[in-house]
Amino acid sequence: MSLPRQRITLVTLGVADLDRARRFYDGWGWSAHSASQPGVFFYQMNGAVLALFGRADLAADQGRSSATLGTGAVTLAQNCADDGETDAVFRAAVAAGATILKRPETAFWGGYSGYFADPDGHVWEIATNPFWPLAADGSLTLPDP
Amino acid sequence: MSLPRQRITLVTLGVADLDRARRFYDGWGWSAHSASQPGVFFYQMNGAVLALFGRADLAADQGRSSATLGTGAVTLAQNCADDGETDAVFRAAVAAGATILKRPETAFWGGYSGYFADPDGHVWEIATNPFWPLAADGSLTLPDP
Repeated sequence: MSLPRQRITLVTLGVADLDRARRFYDGWGWSAHSASQPGVFFYQMNGAVLALFGRADLAADQGRSSATLGTGAVTLAQNCADDGETDAVFRAAVAAGATILKRPETAFWGGYSGYFADPDGHVWEIATNPFWPLAADGSLTLPDP
Repeated sequence: MSLPRQRITLVTLGVADLDRARRFYDGWGWSAHSASQPGVFFYQMNGAVLALFGRADLAADQGRSSATLGTGAVTLAQNCADDGETDAVFRAAVAAGATILKRPETAFWGGYSGYFADPDGHVWEIATNPFWPLAADGSLTLPDP
């Protein structure tokens, strides 16, 4: 089988406290998959999987047990159908304990976007992009300019 | 339109040198989409998009211009069809300038996995997971246990 070169199948977030992280994602409205195991939680997304894994375990798995892993320079965006959904998704995250970085506002590029950090500092952008329509399953295919 | 709650539409990597980052991803075999613009490169993936964006610009967009954004605690996994493909994808990244964190090896959980860091410290896991079959488009749906 030859697979497309450009793909992400799994995004793993290293977390300091696995139960705290799971409470946040569950509180935001996500549901862990039954494939989850002690020490790792999996969430099915649109064709890929989000995983929560202990940060020290992740550093060890990366082959550098003593490394201190940082956050912030990766943002995970969840594009929404419209500004109302962006506001609702953002509010739900804040209610679940997210730290607000920037409340949703009109962006210079013509969309509507806000940022929050999860309890471990992982950054999510919640956005509406009127130029990039989403499929019904939440997937995004770039339009030709 | 009601979209699934559990989705990532865009993964943005904050980078110190946009041209260096693009050379790495192109060298690894990726092709930027024509929707790319000065200051940001987009790559179409399996139902989602990878973006390269200046790290200082990203911090500003997050509403914290003076923040130093860190890397390492998020891993982006590219699961492969078999160990041979995992080796080939890993080798191509190293040839393009990746820093090896752990060469692909048999993992305790029954798969085969290696880690590298891109020029900005963003971490990729290249892996074979015999328990998680991939679709032809490279997407991953978790099997029931």
